[in-house]
Amino acid sequence: MAGSYDRALTVFSPDGHLFQVEYALEAVRKGTCAVGIRGEDCVVLGVEKKSVLKLQDPRTVRKIVTLDDHVCMAFAGLSADARVLVNKARIECQSHRLTVEDPVSVEYITRYIAGIQQKYTQSGGVRPFGISTLIIGFDANDKIPRLYQTDPSGIYSAWKANAIGRSSKTVREFLEKNYKEGLTKEESIKLAVKSLLEVVQTGAKNIEIAVMTSDSVIKNLEIEEVEAIVSEIEKEKEAEAEKKKKPSTSTTQ
Amino acid sequence: MAGSYDRALTVFSPDGHLFQVEYALEAVRKGTCAVGIRGEDCVVLGVEKKSVLKLQDPRTVRKIVTLDDHVCMAFAGLSADARVLVNKARIECQSHRLTVEDPVSVEYITRYIAGIQQKYTQSGGVRPFGISTLIIGFDANDKIPRLYQTDPSGIYSAWKANAIGRSSKTVREFLEKNYKEGLTKEESIKLAVKSLLEVVQTGAKNIEIAVMTSDSVIKNLEIEEVEAIVSEIEKEKEAEAEKKKKPSTSTTQ
Amino acid sequence: MAGSYDRALTVFSPDGHLFQVEYALEAVRKGTCAVGIRGEDCVVLGVEKKSVLKLQDPRTVRKIVTLDDHVCMAFAGLSADARVLVNKARIECQSHRLTVEDPVSVEYITRYIAGIQQKYTQSGGVRPFGISTLIIGFDANDKIPRLYQTDPSGIYSAWKANAIGRSSKTVREFLEKNYKEGLTKEESIKLAVKSLLEVVQTGAKNIEIAVMTSDSVIKNLEIEEVEAIVSEIEKEKEAEAEKKKKPSTSTTQ
Amino acid sequence: MAGSYDRALTVFSPDGHLFQVEYALEAVRKGTCAVGIRGEDCVVLGVEKKSVLKLQDPRTVRKIVTLDDHVCMAFAGLSADARVLVNKARIECQSHRLTVEDPVSVEYITRYIAGIQQKYTQSGGVRPFGISTLIIGFDANDKIPRLYQTDPSGIYSAWKANAIGRSSKTVREFLEKNYKEGLTKEESIKLAVKSLLEVVQTGAKNIEIAVMTSDSVIKNLEIEEVEAIVSEIEKEKEAEAEKKKKPSTSTTQ
Amino acid sequence: MAGSYDRALTVFSPDGHLFQVEYALEAVRKGTCAVGIRGEDCVVLGVEKKSVLKLQDPRTVRKIVTLDDHVCMAFAGLSADARVLVNKARIECQSHRLTVEDPVSVEYITRYIAGIQQKYTQSGGVRPFGISTLIIGFDANDKIPRLYQTDPSGIYSAWKANAIGRSSKTVREFLEKNYKEGLTKEESIKLAVKSLLEVVQTGAKNIEIAVMTSDSVIKNLEIEEVEAIVSEIEKEKEAEAEKKKKPSTSTTQ
Amino acid sequence: MAGSYDRALTVFSPDGHLFQVEYALEAVRKGTCAVGIRGEDCVVLGVEKKSVLKLQDPRTVRKIVTLDDHVCMAFAGLSADARVLVNKARIECQSHRLTVEDPVSVEYITRYIAGIQQKYTQSGGVRPFGISTLIIGFDANDKIPRLYQTDPSGIYSAWKANAIGRSSKTVREFLEKNYKEGLTKEESIKLAVKSLLEVVQTGAKNIEIAVMTSDSVIKNLEIEEVEAIVSEIEKEKEAEAEKKKKPSTSTTQ
Amino acid sequence: MAGSYDRALTVFSPDGHLFQVEYALEAVRKGTCAVGIRGEDCVVLGVEKKSVLKLQDPRTVRKIVTLDDHVCMAFAGLSADARVLVNKARIECQSHRLTVEDPVSVEYITRYIAGIQQKYTQSGGVRPFGISTLIIGFDANDKIPRLYQTDPSGIYSAWKANAIGRSSKTVREFLEKNYKEGLTKEESIKLAVKSLLEVVQTGAKNIEIAVMTSDSVIKNLEIEEVEAIVSEIEKEKEAEAEKKKKPSTSTTQ
Repeated sequence: MAGSYDRALTVFSPDGHLFQVEYALEAVRKGTCAVGIRGEDCVVLGVEKKSVLKLQDPRTVRKIVTLDDHVCMAFAGLSADARVLVNKARIECQSHRLTVEDPVSVEYITRYIAGIQQKYTQSGGVRPFGISTLIIGFDANDKIPRLYQTDPSGIYSAWKANAIGRSSKTVREFLEKNYKEGLTKEESIKLAVKSLLEVVQTGAKNIEIAVMTSDSVIKNLEIEEVEAIVSEIEKEKEAEAEKKKKPSTSTTQ
Repeated sequence: MAGSYDRALTVFSPDGHLFQVEYALEAVRKGTCAVGIRGEDCVVLGVEKKSVLKLQDPRTVRKIVTLDDHVCMAFAGLSADARVLVNKARIECQSHRLTVEDPVSVEYITRYIAGIQQKYTQSGGVRPFGISTLIIGFDANDKIPRLYQTDPSGIYSAWKANAIGRSSKTVREFLEKNYKEGLTKEESIKLAVKSLLEVVQTGAKNIEIAVMTSDSVIKNLEIEEVEAIVSEIEKEKEAEAEKKKKPSTSTTQ
Repeated sequence: MAGSYDRALTVFSPDGHLFQVEYALEAVRKGTCAVGIRGEDCVVLGVEKKSVLKLQDPRTVRKIVTLDDHVCMAFAGLSADARVLVNKARIECQSHRLTVEDPVSVEYITRYIAGIQQKYTQSGGVRPFGISTLIIGFDANDKIPRLYQTDPSGIYSAWKANAIGRSSKTVREFLEKNYKEGLTKEESIKLAVKSLLEVVQTGAKNIEIAVMTSDSVIKNLEIEEVEAIVSEIEKEKEAEAEKKKKPSTSTTQ
Repeated sequence: MAGSYDRALTVFSPDGHLFQVEYALEAVRKGTCAVGIRGEDCVVLGVEKKSVLKLQDPRTVRKIVTLDDHVCMAFAGLSADARVLVNKARIECQSHRLTVEDPVSVEYITRYIAGIQQKYTQSGGVRPFGISTLIIGFDANDKIPRLYQTDPSGIYSAWKANAIGRSSKTVREFLEKNYKEGLTKEESIKLAVKSLLEVVQTGAKNIEIAVMTSDSVIKNLEIEEVEAIVSEIEKEKEAEAEKKKKPSTSTTQ
Repeated sequence: MAGSYDRALTVFSPDGHLFQVEYALEAVRKGTCAVGIRGEDCVVLGVEKKSVLKLQDPRTVRKIVTLDDHVCMAFAGLSADARVLVNKARIECQSHRLTVEDPVSVEYITRYIAGIQQKYTQSGGVRPFGISTLIIGFDANDKIPRLYQTDPSGIYSAWKANAIGRSSKTVREFLEKNYKEGLTKEESIKLAVKSLLEVVQTGAKNIEIAVMTSDSVIKNLEIEEVEAIVSEIEKEKEAEAEKKKKPSTSTTQ
Repeated sequence: MAGSYDRALTVFSPDGHLFQVEYALEAVRKGTCAVGIRGEDCVVLGVEKKSVLKLQDPRTVRKIVTLDDHVCMAFAGLSADARVLVNKARIECQSHRLTVEDPVSVEYITRYIAGIQQKYTQSGGVRPFGISTLIIGFDANDKIPRLYQTDPSGIYSAWKANAIGRSSKTVREFLEKNYKEGLTKEESIKLAVKSLLEVVQTGAKNIEIAVMTSDSVIKNLEIEEVEAIVSEIEKEKEAEAEKKKKPSTSTTQ
Repeated sequence: MAGSYDRALTVFSPDGHLFQVEYALEAVRKGTCAVGIRGEDCVVLGVEKKSVLKLQDPRTVRKIVTLDDHVCMAFAGLSADARVLVNKARIECQSHRLTVEDPVSVEYITRYIAGIQQKYTQSGGVRPFGISTLIIGFDANDKIPRLYQTDPSGIYSAWKANAIGRSSKTVREFLEKNYKEGLTKEESIKLAVKSLLEVVQTGAKNIEIAVMTSDSVIKNLEIEEVEAIVSEIEKEKEAEAEKKKKPSTSTTQ
């Protein structure tokens, strides 16, 4: 009988849950997967592109957006909702530059986005945002890569590597097994692609990768570059499978 | 028991759906069909005209409207809702010209329309718009034809060719089979008519076609022109059927 | 279980309907019938007058109202609702004259009225208008007669001839059978009366006719003029019945 | 199950009714009866006074109120609601004099009152007015007596004679049988009293009569004057009964 | 199933009732009794004091309050609600003196209070006032005693004598039997006490009396004065009972 | 089925009750007990302190608060609600001093507090306050001790002695039996402690006493002082029990 | 059937409860545990850190936040809600410095936070905050350590030592047994860690400790420092267990 708690206002259920927030998380879980990975001096975002229909122009189906010169965001969930948050965040970035004469820090803009998400869970007349986000970037005064995550409840946290959206639990477990400290740019990208391949069956064409280095330059990988990495990964896998088969063929992984 | 989620505010259902948005999509699916096709240096909109009653003046039942000199829109769904969006979009086009001293880009106005559609899914006191749109045009500084689609949730995306409204799935599949890159203006128009004929039984008189070329001139085809194309298509079909029959008569297509 | 969709806000039902709008259409269907007919250089409105009680002053029970010197409106449905729309439309007509220094075009004021009707179907705190309208008139710069129809959903369209309200379907079918292009003023009036007689049993005293000619003069027919037309029609009918009976008496029409 | 349509907003029921308006009409039907009669050069209002309790001061239980020097109003239904309308109408009368430098016409103020009544049936946060009104008066520039009626839905109409409130149907039928054109002042008053006696058992003391003549003077009849008329009517009735009895005693009328 | 009509807004029930107003009247009926009596040149208010608890200070449990130098009010129902009305009325009295430079008339302030009560029955977001009032006073320019009553619906009326609150029907019937025109001050007070004794068992200590004379001086009777009257009444009653017993002892009245 | 009357607005039930107010009274009845006693030239507040947990700092669990130099308040019910009222009252006290250049009278501030409590029972969008209060103090111009009580409905009254909160009925009955006029300061304090001991099992450590004398000095008794009084009372009780036992041991009181 | 009291407004249930507040307390009970301990001249906050996922950056998952130079806060419950309160409190701290030219006292800011929490339980359109807080600090003019607690209802109180959140009852009981007056800084920290170990199984890495000394310097313990304390505690426990075992092995504690 959850129904009766889903009124014009997001209210508590008897056991202390905010159902609307949990339902919004369901919308996130239905969204395409996104991963973020923090390397030694770079930070990488990778997203599963929604299986683009044959005639669709893949350019507009981007799930990685730039908030400011030095901050990038990927999201999982309702893309129309995401656009609202992106607009608000971009305006805050510009407004911060104007008033404080400094670019926002990555944590500042993360807190700002999470704050808006929280507000939509406590006031009447609106519903929570149906998206989780991964925010990457470099602050103005240091060269430390940053990776944050926010969710519909307005919680945010920092990560070395994380995944949101469809099958994010599987991907996060993969990352936990395979993440190592001090990854180079190439290793970071490869790990991002590898982890996405855990859930993306259709290969390179449905994967989008953005890399940010300490000089705060954002680079979106070309499809060919992604394809090269995918095939490299596949070769390695085959080699590994081969290797495994040899010593003991009965091993099931 | 979907009912209980359809209150004064569009809220999430336990599995992360926004029912009001999905119901609005039903209203779109009940609307007449519209197709958009991007050619080499042109872009075409074709719409099924609602079977006009005998005494109705077909002029006012237009489903293709001009937003600015260089942007056109077709829609499927509630036409009264469409008018509200069209008015807002036209004002934005003029206001943009005045403030930025430049016409809007096609993507800008698409994003603007989708943004309004999203807003009506997240705030209390209003219901979502019951329409999907196809937006075509050329930007000021290039000669690339543009085709975008928006829906009641506020999502938008770019397409080479697409269909909305009644039987749009059938038409989209037809387009996927028959669309080729680099279509000339004539081929584009013909493909638009052909795809509409998949769902329109009554022929040329219920089909409306608008063509936009890189000089941003919008041309609405006369009924005779459409009729000419329809009969040409029918002849080709017969010829093809004939051709098919000859080699193997038992083939069912 | 339609009930649960009829809240303070007009919302979509699971199959994409706006119930409040459809219920408002029911109110229209309960209203008295109105017809509009576009002749060669004139346009006629005819309405069934609500069977006036013996002591009622028929003057105030008018269902044909003037919006501006050159625009007239008939309506079917809740007359108190109609007055609200009429007031708003009249103010817009005057305000248009003042700001643009030109009278409104017939389509402009139709779109204006339909726009208000749409607004009342999408915002909370109000219900849709319970009326459909027929709007006739001539534009300032040409001599083309205009006839438009609007309904509670906010849709509008142009017509050669149309009917709204009680039994409007029957009357529209009659018009479809009997309407001819290029009707003279006398023929237009006669057709309007004839079509109303399909639903009005009580004859001339419950029929109200207004004619507008290209010089934009609106003339309301006197009861005697209507009576003359009615008796003329009845004679023709008898003659026709006679004629039919003669050649083959067994024919059932 | 009408209940579910009676929310904070007056909405349509599936068959196109506005229940709150119809329930308000029930409140009117429970109110005391009022009649209006238009004579040759006068117009009369008669009301059934609520059976005044023994110790009540009959002065404050007036159901005939003056809106302006030349306009009077009687009402049936909730008297507290009536006072709100009366106040608004009086302010409009004064404000009209100030801005237009002319008194309101009787139709103008009727339309104004009906407009307020309509507004309370279409907006949220208020309920309809529980009263019907009879408005009489003379316009500034002619000597034609005027009689209008409004109801909770906001409809208004002009009448030669009419009744509202308790048993108004009976009284209206009586008026239909007995009303004649060109009644003198005395005949109008007598008809008003006679028609009220159809529903008022307790005679003159519960009847209140106001007469307005073309010089716009409003005169409230004294109780003695009403009593005189009542006894005159009773004599006539007896005489008539006598007359009827004589020729055929068995006739039951 | 009255329940469903008692929403955020006071709405009509199918038979034309405003339930919230009737429920408020129930709150009045639960309140202590109050009577008002108009004498020749005085007017008296008497109230049953709520059976004061042993340690309660009877001073603050006053149910007779002064609105202005020349106007007094008693009430039955929720005393906290009463205070709101009293405050509003007192401010209006002062404001009237300032703007019009004249004290309010008794009817003016009665109409003002009743108007506020009505407003709370027609607008959303508030509930009706749970009190009825008796208002007494003298106008500035004459020496006529005034007595008015208002109730939760916003109706008001003038009375020679009346009662509100608990058992008011019994008391009113007593007044109807015993009220005479032209009562002196002493007779008026005695009648007020006598009528209250119909419902107050506990005698003088629970009765509060205020008298107003044509010089607009308000006098609250001391408890001893009330006690004197009570014992006088009791003696009379005994005498009367005695007298009745003598001629026929078997008579039960 | 009381439930259906407990909507966003506090409405009347069919028998004239305001349920939300009565439920708020339940919250008061769950609160700790407070007593007030008016002596000859002093006034005492005593409160049961919520059984303070072992590590809790008893200082912040005060239920006696100062509103102004000469006014004190105790309360029973939701302490968070109380703080809101206290803040509003304190601001009013200061504001009164500034504008009128005089301190508030005790009754003035009581009426002010009760007025706020009433407002929260009649307007939508808020719930009633869940507290009752006892207010004590001395006015500026006399030396009469004052004691008032308010409750969630907004009613207030003056008392010689009274109790609110848990078991207040028992305590009030005790006071009724034991209160005497003209109590000295010491007797007043003793009576307050004695009456609280009727409901407080844990003795002096859970009792808080404040005394106000005619010089308007507020004194909070130290725990040792309370303990002294408690042990004195206990001794007296034992003595009395002893005394009772002697003459007749079988008497059960 | 608690459901029906959980509307857009937090209302009372028939037995005087505010359900939404109690449900919010459930959310608090689901949050991680936090303890506060007041020593002789220091005050310590200890929190259980949510079991940080392997790749999560523990820095952002802080549950101890600084409100001003001299005030610290820990919380249990919804961290997104906490951020809103923290922001409001920080602004108040700064604003207080600016207007009063003095830092806030610890009680002042506690009252401020509790006041906001209360407000969200009494007004419509918002839900209560789903957090409890522990606030520590030193006032400007003395060297007394302060420890306060607030909860979703808006109640606050001062403590020597207390716990909130998951298993807080267990921890509070532990504190009651083990707290002693006049603890040194080291003893306070040790007690905080010890009490948290009652509910935290995973040891030092999930414990966060902040210490504030009378010079108002806030120190966050390094993970190594916490580990040192944990191992010291474990050794003591073992020693004690050993000791217990020796004299009587059959004793079950």
